[in-house]
Amino acid sequence: MGKTILITGGARSGKSGIAETMTLGLGPRAVYIATAEAHDAEMEKRIATHQARRGAEWTTHAEPLDLTEALQATDGQGPRLVDCLTLWLSNLMFSGRDWQEEARAMIAALPAQRDPVIFVTNEVGGGIVPDNALAREFRDAAGLLNQRVAAAVDEVHLAVCGLPLKVK
Amino acid sequence: MGKTILITGGARSGKSGIAETMTLGLGPRAVYIATAEAHDAEMEKRIATHQARRGAEWTTHAEPLDLTEALQATDGQGPRLVDCLTLWLSNLMFSGRDWQEEARAMIAALPAQRDPVIFVTNEVGGGIVPDNALAREFRDAAGLLNQRVAAAVDEVHLAVCGLPLKVK
Amino acid sequence: MGKTILITGGARSGKSGIAETMTLGLGPRAVYIATAEAHDAEMEKRIATHQARRGAEWTTHAEPLDLTEALQATDGQGPRLVDCLTLWLSNLMFSGRDWQEEARAMIAALPAQRDPVIFVTNEVGGGIVPDNALAREFRDAAGLLNQRVAAAVDEVHLAVCGLPLKVK
Repeated sequence: MGKTILITGGARSGKSGIAETMTLGLGPRAVYIATAEAHDAEMEKRIATHQARRGAEWTTHAEPLDLTEALQATDGQGPRLVDCLTLWLSNLMFSGRDWQEEARAMIAALPAQRDPVIFVTNEVGGGIVPDNALAREFRDAAGLLNQRVAAAVDEVHLAVCGLPLKVK
Repeated sequence: MGKTILITGGARSGKSGIAETMTLGLGPRAVYIATAEAHDAEMEKRIATHQARRGAEWTTHAEPLDLTEALQATDGQGPRLVDCLTLWLSNLMFSGRDWQEEARAMIAALPAQRDPVIFVTNEVGGGIVPDNALAREFRDAAGLLNQRVAAAVDEVHLAVCGLPLKVK
Repeated sequence: MGKTILITGGARSGKSGIAETMTLGLGPRAVYIATAEAHDAEMEKRIATHQARRGAEWTTHAEPLDLTEALQATDGQGPRLVDCLTLWLSNLMFSGRDWQEEARAMIAALPAQRDPVIFVTNEVGGGIVPDNALAREFRDAAGLLNQRVAAAVDEVHLAVCGLPLKVK
């Protein structure tokens, strides 16, 4: 079984940069599994900024929904960086999929992976309780998903100002 | 004096689960001091989810306001889990009580407790500054209460993705 | 080169208190470089609360914008506490200055400082994604500034309930 790592942190805490460094530390060629979809100009800019930072060691595999299949398809190509679980969750919820079942299947598929998998996720529960019921529901789901993935992986790190703090 | 522990973390960071495990590690029978009041269906569902997870080792003592009295009344019945300080603060503020005085009295009562006390609290200061003055005032009070309790207890842990990170 | 430290944390996490203690640990007399400007009564009250806590060991140097010049002007007067980087960023952005260039110059000036510099900053990326585009832009800039300063300084600590957690 390949090593599995979860990197969590707030917005702009440097979690993607930390995850990229850790992923390249596990193999000379790496696969970037992008769960983001560019729905507007702001999102396009964010995706382009992330891509510009990554170099020639990376191949990109875009997959907003079928993450388990993406992991199966890329196993054998080197360490995989999944960026990020929160957007995957958001995509599943918007598509009307059962995120709990999808997460269960994805976590159950991890032990059979030969190459490492590094997950990036977001801390979204650190602010004041949102006014909006949908935001609260999403925040709850994101926290539960993080807990389940954290329980399954080998290492968990919290990104603080671009630095990793080891939690597990 | 019984051991005192504070578990802090964002929404859905797994802090209640961590606190329940730590509480049962300190005695075979435990008391759950619930500060939550079910004012609406969403809150009722949240309370029911938490209760369903706890087993037969637990007795529940509901007390939204008089926490110091609840600690006195339950001392001798095993470790107590207070879930949570942020709701207690919110209840005090809504009732027009002087939360600073109530917090001072509660903290002053801790050294006389024979059984352990485990507190759960929320990190609410990690987001962008709220637009709303009442939200900012509550956020400030919650942070101050957390600091005062943290200074008084034996151990402090930050919950990250369901895992405890020892701070004190 | 004087020691450089960054203290980060959410609102009311006790970061200013931690920073003040660390600063006085580095010299008997200290300089408080205040980046805050009192634009309203709430802000005035916050500034007064912070000032009341500091004692006679402190002299105050107020500078909302020209932080590099403030560091040059106060070098030789003892350890400097800059409180805080997030307000400095906000002031630069409101004034239409190029914050990236100002930050670059400030960081480049650190190695020539003989007296220590302790920075306080805010974690603002821990909540749900803000609705407001300006809040998202500020949150991104604040996170990037934190990462750049964290990469340059000797130590980084995360304040949790008034307690420092060493990250670097």
